[in-house]
Amino acid sequence: MSAISIRRAREADVAAIVATLADDALGQAREDAGLPLSRAYLDAFAAIDGDPNQFLAVMTDGDDIVGTLQITFIAGLSLRGARRGLIEAVRVAAGRRGEGLGQRLFEWAIDKCRERGCRVVQLTTNKSRTDAHRFYERLGFKASHIGYKLELQAGAQPFIAAL
Amino acid sequence: MSAISIRRAREADVAAIVATLADDALGQAREDAGLPLSRAYLDAFAAIDGDPNQFLAVMTDGDDIVGTLQITFIAGLSLRGARRGLIEAVRVAAGRRGEGLGQRLFEWAIDKCRERGCRVVQLTTNKSRTDAHRFYERLGFKASHIGYKLELQAGAQPFIAAL
Repeated sequence: MSAISIRRAREADVAAIVATLADDALGQAREDAGLPLSRAYLDAFAAIDGDPNQFLAVMTDGDDIVGTLQITFIAGLSLRGARRGLIEAVRVAAGRRGEGLGQRLFEWAIDKCRERGCRVVQLTTNKSRTDAHRFYERLGFKASHIGYKLELQAGAQPFIAAL
Repeated sequence: MSAISIRRAREADVAAIVATLADDALGQAREDAGLPLSRAYLDAFAAIDGDPNQFLAVMTDGDDIVGTLQITFIAGLSLRGARRGLIEAVRVAAGRRGEGLGQRLFEWAIDKCRERGCRVVQLTTNKSRTDAHRFYERLGFKASHIGYKLELQAGAQPFIAAL
């Protein structure tokens, strides 16, 4: 019997979350899931965990992490002072896709955004992730925007100047 | 002589910022810049101003607000623990476009993201804003992503439950 649940991530989950992020066509080139885990991941976890407007979620099946996503709650003036929920870093474990876990995780995340007073839930997804596009459109998301990214060069400027 | 500068927004700026947000093809239907200003904007300002990972910026020319944008600094595990700067609610005052103020405001914002240790600056812009697309591409942003939005129905759920 499956015992799927969703909860806030703990430091002990970080290596498993990073493995999930890495186990992906785009992620494998971008992450370093080797153990011992890079200090940068643990520092990032501490920053997320210490921010009351962040919620890093894991979906578990018993002791296994089978999905993850991160919500950032963002106050803003636009849309008559609407709060937004931004969702990033969405993954379902490679061996567990096609079971509806992603939908369940997203329904949970949308409810969490509602609870926190958000009027908009937003996310961007790489243009190459065509399966993800269908998934988000089924959930009711509208592809109304273009997502632009600018990568900053590490090293060109003092880098951890004002964390 | 022009005395353009950029600084953190103060409560006394909120009405002028909202007027700038409203003075726009999409914004005019979405904002309510009437005075006295809707309480929702002041509440949103207080939430932004109290969040150390938010920076609501105004560009001023003497006493006039000629531009605005909001940066949210987001810690995350992805990209080996990369911090991101998310830019929202970008406007240059209608009478001051075409003077290079937007570029100056963005260069400032990108520097601010660098100072805060960001490796990525990201934003979304409505597909209909074709002038904005050219602007971001000139600044070096890549249109690599699709931006999805889901509007949540106000009233369907307890709304300000856990602000």
